[in-house]
Amino acid sequence: MSRRPGRRSGPGDTRAEILTAARGLFAAEGFDRTTLRRVAETAGVDVALISHYFGSKRGLFLAAVDFPADPDQVLRPLQDCPEDELAATMLRQVLTVWDSPTGPAVLARFRQAVVTGETDLARGLLTSVILGPVRERIGAYGQTELRLSLFASQVGGLLLTRHIFGLDALREADIDTLVDAVAPNLQRYLTGDL
Amino acid sequence: MSRRPGRRSGPGDTRAEILTAARGLFAAEGFDRTTLRRVAETAGVDVALISHYFGSKRGLFLAAVDFPADPDQVLRPLQDCPEDELAATMLRQVLTVWDSPTGPAVLARFRQAVVTGETDLARGLLTSVILGPVRERIGAYGQTELRLSLFASQVGGLLLTRHIFGLDALREADIDTLVDAVAPNLQRYLTGDL
Repeated sequence: MSRRPGRRSGPGDTRAEILTAARGLFAAEGFDRTTLRRVAETAGVDVALISHYFGSKRGLFLAAVDFPADPDQVLRPLQDCPEDELAATMLRQVLTVWDSPTGPAVLARFRQAVVTGETDLARGLLTSVILGPVRERIGAYGQTELRLSLFASQVGGLLLTRHIFGLDALREADIDTLVDAVAPNLQRYLTGDL
Repeated sequence: MSRRPGRRSGPGDTRAEILTAARGLFAAEGFDRTTLRRVAETAGVDVALISHYFGSKRGLFLAAVDFPADPDQVLRPLQDCPEDELAATMLRQVLTVWDSPTGPAVLARFRQAVVTGETDLARGLLTSVILGPVRERIGAYGQTELRLSLFASQVGGLLLTRHIFGLDALREADIDTLVDAVAPNLQRYLTGDL
């Protein structure tokens, strides 16, 4: 627990101290206002160590919330898909995670945020991390936050009605059917007239 | 508590007995498979009394789940609005309820269903009662259950992201802005190509 200046404590200890500091700051300040420098100060470590362990603020955040999937990997196809396929690409990736072995853990996190009302970390995860790669691509259309929030409302609602309320028609639909039905609506939110 | 054949017990007692029987049956059997006759048998009353107190199976259901709003009144404008305004009409009515003094109670019910995972009654409320007036109008387009479930996913997602996760762009948007942004998507689910 004590800081030992001039040398590192055991890697497990230091990593845990960084994560504890990060959880507190991300919850209190949000993702955007939390800096790696501040996390390092709070944990009593050199900021280079955070990069060493977690790569980036995104990486630190995902470790701090113990998110069961790796958004960077899941969302990689968004970087170079055509603009008019952004919604279909993102939706297919998300639906694939929900139907994967990781799905139940993602669902449990979602339910937990609704239950506890502690939505600060979940909101940061959604708007700053998960939607980040989409945000980067739609800036030219204006109303970016409204577009991303509407996008989130449809995807979140699909998780809700398909996996929590278990509406038969959505539970039984395969991924292709859902992408055909929902992606045009999502694409309108991203790049269409609102 | 005891049934007195040939005459009614006090109105409060009888009403409560009917509601207790109805809650049990609706939860176990669902809305569609529960009959007023069966509720009457379980409560030990004449079926005519149920009509007297609650008007219809819908009325009985709403009383049994103690739903804080009156869907029949909220959804009345759906009966005679033009077909291409179904989605905008429904969305405007629902958003108005959420922003009304009844809103917090509706939200509490929603959260409770997610928390407890006891979604049977909520699913019945949604698919059989709230979406009933829309179902009656879109039969000609086929895939009715998929259309209604997609509709529910977007409206439920809006409740989730606007009122539980509190995404700024949705929280701060007025009803007109939300109707303009979301109703075309909802209308596609009801009557468009899927």
